[in-house]
Amino acid sequence: MSVAPLFRALEQSLRCLPGVGPRSATRMALHLLERDRERAAGLASALVDALERLTHCNRCHNLTETQPCGICRNPERETGVLCVVGSPGDILAIEQSGLYTGQYYCLQGLLSPLEGLGPDEIGLPALFARVQDERPSEVVIALASTVEGEATTHQIVMQLKGQTRLTRLAQGVPVGGELDHIDATTLSQALASRTELGR
Amino acid sequence: MSVAPLFRALEQSLRCLPGVGPRSATRMALHLLERDRERAAGLASALVDALERLTHCNRCHNLTETQPCGICRNPERETGVLCVVGSPGDILAIEQSGLYTGQYYCLQGLLSPLEGLGPDEIGLPALFARVQDERPSEVVIALASTVEGEATTHQIVMQLKGQTRLTRLAQGVPVGGELDHIDATTLSQALASRTELGR
Repeated sequence: MSVAPLFRALEQSLRCLPGVGPRSATRMALHLLERDRERAAGLASALVDALERLTHCNRCHNLTETQPCGICRNPERETGVLCVVGSPGDILAIEQSGLYTGQYYCLQGLLSPLEGLGPDEIGLPALFARVQDERPSEVVIALASTVEGEATTHQIVMQLKGQTRLTRLAQGVPVGGELDHIDATTLSQALASRTELGR
Repeated sequence: MSVAPLFRALEQSLRCLPGVGPRSATRMALHLLERDRERAAGLASALVDALERLTHCNRCHNLTETQPCGICRNPERETGVLCVVGSPGDILAIEQSGLYTGQYYCLQGLLSPLEGLGPDEIGLPALFARVQDERPSEVVIALASTVEGEATTHQIVMQLKGQTRLTRLAQGVPVGGELDHIDATTLSQALASRTELGR
């Protein structure tokens, strides 16, 4: 055995990180042990703390260390608008835009019968109950533009139409996107939903 | 505060990993917490174990959890050949090639006066003492082909010449390398050290 088993164990564990293959894992393990032991110890304890104390908000299912989460208990946020997303990462992305000030409901995934994810698994009944209970004036559906996202959006619209105003994120050309790099479906969607500039 | 502080702390800590910017750190933190809590806990404990128990071999300075390391105390390895490398990662790379069966001495970096790394800081005196003591029949210098690597190689050669056979890794075209992707210095080196195929 020419390589220390604990080193190999660390390499192997680092491979659970997304986008980390065998070579990056080796490079990361060496960096942590040879260059930056202090921050490596910090990473270990941040990971332990996060795993121990971050759970899901009972109300919106966002990642949180308090119940309810910081967004749900913020009295300055609008209460009449509810945004439905597919994962806590989507909440982070929308919060980063800084434009949305309403409430969230985070599904536990998107409908995907092949993976065994039906309405109950992803938390749709709780969403419907919450809408019936709180009667928001608008539900913004912010799910991925994938087959699963569309199916989930469809299911939500079927259930909630007539109860509240339903909207979805605009589809079109990403800001900064060059037309010749964009796929035909997006382009035809952007064309069909073209907006008025004046006449 | 719309994002859980422990989540932000984990994100920030992940950025100590080489090649991990803010977006990858977010992606990794979400993956660890949302998809793979079990392996995330494994990563934390592998990191703690490695930091606690991996140190440097007293004899060769390789990363090890035993004294001396697995390579130094392996009775099946050749004792007459000593390979000098610049970091434990280089030992991993050479061991992976499977061709070298001798001993190692791992410098603690390469000579770099600007970074305050002189002969004492990188462990050259201990190398020279070991060569004088053990009298290996060959010292293979396997340092990077950089200015620092060349300066360190030069220093070692100056000190050890006359005491033992000194060799260095061959320089040339990497196996699988296309000629037009290789820099001019490497190519001229490869040309100057061309090897005989027959006549």
